[in-house]
Amino acid sequence: MTPAQTAMVADLSRVLDPAGIVTDPAAIAPWTVDWRQRWKGVTPAILAPRSTAEVAEVVRAAARHRVPLVPQGGNSSMVGGATPPEDGSALILSLRRMTAIRSLSPSLAVAEAGVILQTLNAAALTIGSRFPLTLGARGSATVGGLVSTNAGGTQVLRFGTMRGLVAGVEAVLADGTVHDGTGALAKDNRGYSLDQLLIGAEGTLGVVTAAALRLVPAVVARAVAWAGVADPAAALALLRRFQAAGDAVESFEILPAETLDAALAHLPDARAPLHGRHPWHLLIEATAASAEVEPPAAFVERVLAQALSDGLVADATIAASEAQAEAFWRLRDSLSDAERAQGPATQHDIAVPVDAMPRFMVEAAAACEARFPGTRASGFGHLGDGNIHFHVRAPRVVDRDRWFGKDAPAISRFVHDLVTQAGGTISAEHGIGQMKREELARLAPPGRLAALAAIKGALDPLGILNPGKLLAPASPPQ
Amino acid sequence: MTPAQTAMVADLSRVLDPAGIVTDPAAIAPWTVDWRQRWKGVTPAILAPRSTAEVAEVVRAAARHRVPLVPQGGNSSMVGGATPPEDGSALILSLRRMTAIRSLSPSLAVAEAGVILQTLNAAALTIGSRFPLTLGARGSATVGGLVSTNAGGTQVLRFGTMRGLVAGVEAVLADGTVHDGTGALAKDNRGYSLDQLLIGAEGTLGVVTAAALRLVPAVVARAVAWAGVADPAAALALLRRFQAAGDAVESFEILPAETLDAALAHLPDARAPLHGRHPWHLLIEATAASAEVEPPAAFVERVLAQALSDGLVADATIAASEAQAEAFWRLRDSLSDAERAQGPATQHDIAVPVDAMPRFMVEAAAACEARFPGTRASGFGHLGDGNIHFHVRAPRVVDRDRWFGKDAPAISRFVHDLVTQAGGTISAEHGIGQMKREELARLAPPGRLAALAAIKGALDPLGILNPGKLLAPASPPQ
Repeated sequence: MTPAQTAMVADLSRVLDPAGIVTDPAAIAPWTVDWRQRWKGVTPAILAPRSTAEVAEVVRAAARHRVPLVPQGGNSSMVGGATPPEDGSALILSLRRMTAIRSLSPSLAVAEAGVILQTLNAAALTIGSRFPLTLGARGSATVGGLVSTNAGGTQVLRFGTMRGLVAGVEAVLADGTVHDGTGALAKDNRGYSLDQLLIGAEGTLGVVTAAALRLVPAVVARAVAWAGVADPAAALALLRRFQAAGDAVESFEILPAETLDAALAHLPDARAPLHGRHPWHLLIEATAASAEVEPPAAFVERVLAQALSDGLVADATIAASEAQAEAFWRLRDSLSDAERAQGPATQHDIAVPVDAMPRFMVEAAAACEARFPGTRASGFGHLGDGNIHFHVRAPRVVDRDRWFGKDAPAISRFVHDLVTQAGGTISAEHGIGQMKREELARLAPPGRLAALAAIKGALDPLGILNPGKLLAPASPPQ
Repeated sequence: MTPAQTAMVADLSRVLDPAGIVTDPAAIAPWTVDWRQRWKGVTPAILAPRSTAEVAEVVRAAARHRVPLVPQGGNSSMVGGATPPEDGSALILSLRRMTAIRSLSPSLAVAEAGVILQTLNAAALTIGSRFPLTLGARGSATVGGLVSTNAGGTQVLRFGTMRGLVAGVEAVLADGTVHDGTGALAKDNRGYSLDQLLIGAEGTLGVVTAAALRLVPAVVARAVAWAGVADPAAALALLRRFQAAGDAVESFEILPAETLDAALAHLPDARAPLHGRHPWHLLIEATAASAEVEPPAAFVERVLAQALSDGLVADATIAASEAQAEAFWRLRDSLSDAERAQGPATQHDIAVPVDAMPRFMVEAAAACEARFPGTRASGFGHLGDGNIHFHVRAPRVVDRDRWFGKDAPAISRFVHDLVTQAGGTISAEHGIGQMKREELARLAPPGRLAALAAIKGALDPLGILNPGKLLAPASPPQ
């Protein structure tokens, strides 16, 4: 520990309970590496307060001693957003002990930052409601991280990202001020929205300690279908038919045949949902929150039957049971892991306008493979949001150091250029973190970058909140 | 004109067409007074660019010459937010000539800042869609003003405020940078949301030049009902019944008998919707965007019939024709004008949590009348949003100077204290502007005020954008 860190921890030992200051290297280790194992950070201590007041004390101590903090929830960032820097200068501020669901009503939950998404989902269900956001990491991702990354997931098509689901944020600002927006007034126009500013700020403007989250009525029936189509254009045409027929579709995921193959290889018990081979696959979920509307299965069957008879869809099946529905979803949720098991790759969480995505998927993959011979490029994900995870796999024979050190960054720049030219974003849902910071600096309009840096400088003048994430540090903390 | 203003206008005469620089005092005069005639400002010129590029030139010239700008749309601010300061230091930047609807699809319109709400509504209708926000000033309020004030109105219950309806903002920042968020990607996590920061910023952080706005399917059927109830608690109970029965209700407005009386007196041709006298009245609108769902009239009748038989509602009627529906709405939309015609009053646009509003309405009115003898206090408005317009009328015999100079401000402080104690907001939908600036400074947590001021200082360091609105100027522009 540096002298400043030692003094800060000594101060906090009078505020936090013994479990609130973790200095055992073995206990710290798992939290200094991101889950993709790309960033390995160093920290001498994890601070784990139990309340907003304690978080405020930690932040005040950090400001006093000029020790940076890395806020951390489930540590499931895809962009190194929660990993401490390598120089050991920062302490991790873990929110994982703040696990209270402070209130729960049919339309609103106020949950602390450390509540795990799956726990929140389960709590909402007990009162006949649901929090309509889910993602592969639901067993580890926390409310604080979901807010701070403006998380998306597989239900954005119908319910939007966190930005639309958060009714208010409680956070500790860099000066120790507690901002409490969880009163969740339906209307409040008292100046700039700090809540919205904190959503997606990746812990660089404040430490999210709780959030008021909108709930919707629980699902009473769902239909999960799997369909095979010729290309992404046919997939989008099918989505438009579903949307014209009603608003029940909440997931519309696309994946190419080779990605399905990878998932089937990765999951030993999994079976292909369709017979025969199709170039592209779709996972479609429709739900109903009331027994009085058309059953989702009937709705999905109606639209799919027409599409089959028109030749828009080559084959399709509706899960005959909840077990089969879960099996379909397990295939989808395993894609990241399955691709990781296939060897070195570089991933891109990108979006373009929805209508432009089918063509982009095909053309960008072809352009990539032509430019970088031996690579295999493909995208899967949230077609209905115009957001895919575009992965480029390394050639079979590859020098890993060269790949990760040189080829992968070059490929990423190439992909990001294509996306930018298409009016898209280099980060649709994962954020910027460490991974995309230089790319953001390279591609964002200078005026926008200047505005972001000005906001950061205004709200965190000492640079103590997650420095080096999203934006380059203005200067080392004094 | 000051020498700096003269030099700035000379610069801009090479950029703007002749109609873009208005210096005729008679042409300027109507735009220097707010519609409630509370604030009378002074300016030597109105600048009226026709394009975003021209707005950027105006802002750059303002920065160069250190001349503040007051962005202005329809000049229908309720809080003096678009009125220039009295010292003549600022020029008005009118967005009223930017009237293009740049694109229109079933789910999205990109409209320039000067597009009038009614025009946007009409344009959406031509393609079978609608922009689900309306308010009394729809014939003058512009897109830029609606975005900059995070406007609400009578449909927030179902569709939310502007914050949820804006998919992206185009704006000119204080350094002349054009921020373009109108690409309207469904997901985009490239750092802090400038779009959300500009919504509700009252033109103090940037000049909104266009916005991408979400559209929903047009209404194919609506039912407009009028009901009489004993008290606000019964009204909220009725709303909860409607919400439990479906999601078709999009307006649920409450007004007391004396406010209805004022409207009936103000509109010579208007008739009371119900026979007999009821302490409180409700205007309820339900809509359907498809002929395949339960007709709204049947839905409303079903819920009202049960409520009548239970005694929750004393009397109710459903408009038998569009003409009658319009007549009901005309009563509602005339309330502000009608109350203004009754003599001096002080108005408060406040919100508390929805469930707390019935009790608040009754108790706050009683507390006000007890504390300020001779006054009459009552609230009307958006019960479903927990947002009412709480008006306190002066005693019949009143010294106007004393009322506006001393009594009304004292009453407002009293009301705002009550609202703050109830966890509410002193500005639910009108914003802060000039009118509530000191009250915001008095009642907001100091840490929050410091954060707002830091953001303002970071994004408008020269203080050229709508100085003195929302926040006190940090220092006079140099």
